[in-house]
Amino acid sequence: MRGVSWGLLVVVLCAATVGQTGKMSEAEQAIREADKAWSQAAQNKDLDKTVSFYADDASALPFNAPIATGKDQIKQLWSNLMAKPGFSLTFAPTKIDVAKSGELAYEVGTFELKMNDPQGNPTAIPGKYVVAWKRQSNGDWKVELDIFNTDK
Amino acid sequence: MRGVSWGLLVVVLCAATVGQTGKMSEAEQAIREADKAWSQAAQNKDLDKTVSFYADDASALPFNAPIATGKDQIKQLWSNLMAKPGFSLTFAPTKIDVAKSGELAYEVGTFELKMNDPQGNPTAIPGKYVVAWKRQSNGDWKVELDIFNTDK
Repeated sequence: MRGVSWGLLVVVLCAATVGQTGKMSEAEQAIREADKAWSQAAQNKDLDKTVSFYADDASALPFNAPIATGKDQIKQLWSNLMAKPGFSLTFAPTKIDVAKSGELAYEVGTFELKMNDPQGNPTAIPGKYVVAWKRQSNGDWKVELDIFNTDK
Repeated sequence: MRGVSWGLLVVVLCAATVGQTGKMSEAEQAIREADKAWSQAAQNKDLDKTVSFYADDASALPFNAPIATGKDQIKQLWSNLMAKPGFSLTFAPTKIDVAKSGELAYEVGTFELKMNDPQGNPTAIPGKYVVAWKRQSNGDWKVELDIFNTDK
């Protein structure tokens, strides 16, 4: 009986651990899926879809430009970026940390921006970013803050 | 009696609301105090104190340079920055959002970096940043991610 009790205790502890990890992973999984769709939308130059990942009160903080707050300013920012000759952008997270309360998360990742240089030659610009995500009342994760800069 | 019950209900509801807001403000207050001390340390060119605000596994993501992870790389980054002629830095948060679970927060803010230009003339460089904070097991808030870029 003593052996069985210890066995049961281990099973219960394992189940509790898996349950907790599973809950975390659900939020992280949702954010990673949003990231994939978001990066794809940017690569497709789908302006409306790209902007749809931001919350209404979101801010984007680009390099070499002032802060853009709200969907209109963020749309203008992406519109300018996508209009650049040779534009292509891909990005992916390297780490996502979700709050225990499950409504707030931050993500760090890397991007590769491609544009033509002044001579018209394709140039790859590596960079990195941080995104703050917030779970909305309907359960969707939306971007609250999006800041990025280049490595060189 | 009915009037008294309603009055009591309002008092209880108010107390609950104040309690919740008070709890949030405590975390935000702690982060704002850390920010003040951190900005002061940077302005004083106190390298060790400046680096002490980062968690051991933190990353700093500077513009025009690759990601710096861990205290050694972050210290090197700040050391290089503080060594620049005419260096001066002040920063302050414009918004702090703390997770309901109270262990994770993100902050957006602005900075003014002063350095001498190549001709030796003092130049002010305005910029913005996002910091992800995490509450440590001893209750201290430490920086997990620190990313910043310039406006121009």
